Amino acid sequence: MLTSLQNPTVKQLRKLQQAKERRKQAVLLLEGTHLIEAACEANYPLQVLCYTEQWQQRYADLYQRALAQSEQIELVSPAVLKSIASTVTPDGVVAIAPQRNAWQAAASRPTGDISLGIMLEALQDPGNLGTIIRTAAGAGSDGLWLSDDSVDVGNPKVLRASVGQWFRLPIETVDITEKAQQLKAQGVQVVATSAIASLNYWQLDLRSPTVFVMGNEGAGLSESLMACASEVVKIPVVPGVESLNVAVSTAVLLYEALRQRSHMIP
Amino acid sequence: MLTSLQNPTVKQLRKLQQAKERRKQAVLLLEGTHLIEAACEANYPLQVLCYTEQWQQRYADLYQRALAQSEQIELVSPAVLKSIASTVTPDGVVAIAPQRNAWQAAASRPTGDISLGIMLEALQDPGNLGTIIRTAAGAGSDGLWLSDDSVDVGNPKVLRASVGQWFRLPIETVDITEKAQQLKAQGVQVVATSAIASLNYWQLDLRSPTVFVMGNEGAGLSESLMACASEVVKIPVVPGVESLNVAVSTAVLLYEALRQRSHMIP
Repeated sequence: MLTSLQNPTVKQLRKLQQAKERRKQAVLLLEGTHLIEAACEANYPLQVLCYTEQWQQRYADLYQRALAQSEQIELVSPAVLKSIASTVTPDGVVAIAPQRNAWQAAASRPTGDISLGIMLEALQDPGNLGTIIRTAAGAGSDGLWLSDDSVDVGNPKVLRASVGQWFRLPIETVDITEKAQQLKAQGVQVVATSAIASLNYWQLDLRSPTVFVMGNEGAGLSESLMACASEVVKIPVVPGVESLNVAVSTAVLLYEALRQRSHMIP
Repeated sequence: MLTSLQNPTVKQLRKLQQAKERRKQAVLLLEGTHLIEAACEANYPLQVLCYTEQWQQRYADLYQRALAQSEQIELVSPAVLKSIASTVTPDGVVAIAPQRNAWQAAASRPTGDISLGIMLEALQDPGNLGTIIRTAAGAGSDGLWLSDDSVDVGNPKVLRASVGQWFRLPIETVDITEKAQQLKAQGVQVVATSAIASLNYWQLDLRSPTVFVMGNEGAGLSESLMACASEVVKIPVVPGVESLNVAVSTAVLLYEALRQRSHMIP
């Protein structure tokens, strides 16, 4: 069991609390039983699994599953675990995993025919991104494309806000304008939102393959991406209210698509 | 101009960074131009307005409006302003205002006939509450009732996440079960959500007066409040996804009501 904070392995792991170090090593820090469980269910590989004796006893089944997909395992003392974790009260388990783009499984990228998708441009808030991932997974979206100037998809806050859906939803960081044009050429309806659009979103037929394009929290969509849209709709708000939160807007659009499609003959 | 961090007024103001002290004095800390603007638009009273010279020059019109509804004004140095603010980079203005329940204006409580409302039970996350307030205002909700075991409505994170809508939306902290029964007795449809309901939310007629009841982030609705519901619906999610974020769920329900009502003859 690793008990010393001066142990070289422990020192290495502690470095990963810094975003810079995680980027350099192309890894993620997975903290807590819930995320480890979600990673195991998605067959996401783990490089190092650190756990306390108490955690191992309490979650014997999950321990066995995590063991099977971990390259290295380390039984650690509660004090060592706390020193590795970035959260204030870690619940007995922390794992190091490769970043998404280092994970080559086919399931990690949106492919094939797209029926319902999300594109995000310059999204800044990790909580918003995590919530959008959770909602997109819940609504059965085929995947999410993120512009390369958005928040890092491996940010621990993104993982937490997605409550495990991060591992299930295909996500790709791309040149967003190019991707929008490519999808449109494939016959996918690219729907942007604007406060000055004349059409309410529920007036648009969303039963054919559709991708919703959402912009930055403050600035909204860039002109170049807006120009790629095949349809522009508005989410009506009471006069005097500026706009809705971007994760809220995305949810309202996704669920309207689901509602319209529920009336289709199966 | 107040320039000393040792000035008694400055010392008093700095104490208000603590939630305990704000509760004791029944005040709010409003930080930043955006919140001051929203407070002025809603004619919300200000007890003390602290501003830098630079802020006064840059926002001359807003300064005049804020002046008109402030009991006391204090020109302060940038260093003093920074010491009063709880945010890392305050933008030149901080105000002290009475708490909502100390603000006796009629507009602060939902009254009269309710057409569209929200009830929240034991909501814990201030970001969720702020986002729900923003969405409820955007969707034209008549107001929001909050159970008394929920997050403090005066929490600075609630104000920030609401982006100013906090001042517009009628909000009342109440015995939530009693209020639900009272509204039902008045003929308002009380709609709860449950993962095991058979009816999808879009299958329910939401054109008559409706209040949506949302539960705690982890535990959902209590049995006693669920028993008060006149209708129980589900928001469908793909199997394997636990649920949606509570602010996202609330938005999806509110906007379905708006959509159904848009087809009504005016």
